[in-house]
Amino acid sequence: MTPNERLMQQINFIIEIDKLKSIWRQTTLIDGSRRENDAEHSWHLAVMTMLLSEYANKKDIDVLRVMKMVIIHDLVEIDAGDTFAYDQEGYKDKEKREEEAANRIFSILPKDQYKEIYHLWREFEEGHTPEARFAAALDRVQPLLHNYYTEGGTWKQHNVTLDQVTKRFEPIKEGSEVLGKLVEEIINESVAKGYIRQGM
Amino acid sequence: MTPNERLMQQINFIIEIDKLKSIWRQTTLIDGSRRENDAEHSWHLAVMTMLLSEYANKKDIDVLRVMKMVIIHDLVEIDAGDTFAYDQEGYKDKEKREEEAANRIFSILPKDQYKEIYHLWREFEEGHTPEARFAAALDRVQPLLHNYYTEGGTWKQHNVTLDQVTKRFEPIKEGSEVLGKLVEEIINESVAKGYIRQGM
Ligand SMILES: [Ca+2]
Repeated sequence: MTPNERLMQQINFIIEIDKLKSIWRQTTLIDGSRRENDAEHSWHLAVMTMLLSEYANKKDIDVLRVMKMVIIHDLVEIDAGDTFAYDQEGYKDKEKREEEAANRIFSILPKDQYKEIYHLWREFEEGHTPEARFAAALDRVQPLLHNYYTEGGTWKQHNVTLDQVTKRFEPIKEGSEVLGKLVEEIINESVAKGYIRQGM
Repeated sequence: MTPNERLMQQINFIIEIDKLKSIWRQTTLIDGSRRENDAEHSWHLAVMTMLLSEYANKKDIDVLRVMKMVIIHDLVEIDAGDTFAYDQEGYKDKEKREEEAANRIFSILPKDQYKEIYHLWREFEEGHTPEARFAAALDRVQPLLHNYYTEGGTWKQHNVTLDQVTKRFEPIKEGSEVLGKLVEEIINESVAKGYIRQGM
């Protein structure tokens, strides 16, 4: 492979992933004007990584690895689509669809970078390392903030219950006790304000 | 300041910068469907940083610092707006507008992070370090790819000339010789295909 071929594979990948800007999430912008897409969401997580990594449970977490994880974690949705957090049907074949997507999309890259990005994505999905757990915590805190600041957002829209929300946000404290506590407070306030329905 | 106050300042900043998703650039998505915004653009640069840092002129560049720079470099546009690259009028008071914006927006953060992010932004703007030069190179390569793959994009729309484009992309090679060469090839092809007008 000539150096030029390598560069062209990288450029082809950079062009391909532009599609992430057209993968729409359920969550809206904080001004409520429209839904946000995966590229915007991933950027927001990158800034949060930079500012909040001091709250990771593990001291001196590898911030660059978290940053890489959050900016690539949703790329598989270019093929597999965004599966809404409370969509039980969609979750059934999510894993298979995403694995196929990872293989197609990441393999546009030169082999060494294909491997790097594939392993980062798997690390995020499996959530066994402190970096992956912290990245996953941010991935849940961000839409929670959006829902709270839009007075209920997708919680209200989909009639989501306190039980569902509690279960969904449970893993946050495995990445960050501090953020876990913050989320607890926000959920309590959201119930008090009627953004989240009590019950099962 | 209690730990909780610090966290609330950080959260307030994270909420404030959601506005970057509504700052529209001239450049369109590669499928041509709409213009892209600063948050999407910044995310794209972060992925490019991860994949292309091997081409930085300086060996073993600080990738995390470049990553931080690209994700925050456009935040000032929340107040100052996006100034189109070939808008000479807009460039006259750009610096003053952006300095005021930096002070208002970054000062939402706790003081240590205000300082960090302000210095990263100044470093990017001044372009004296290898990291800043490489970040600036990516910031110019990304819209060039969009323009090329949309068969002219904003070049055609604004009747931009080869002289203007050449001048605009000149600094890329100060961050990366390899990317500078790539850009030269793309510009030549763009002229041949009629995406860029010859002349002054
Ligand atoms: Ca996500």
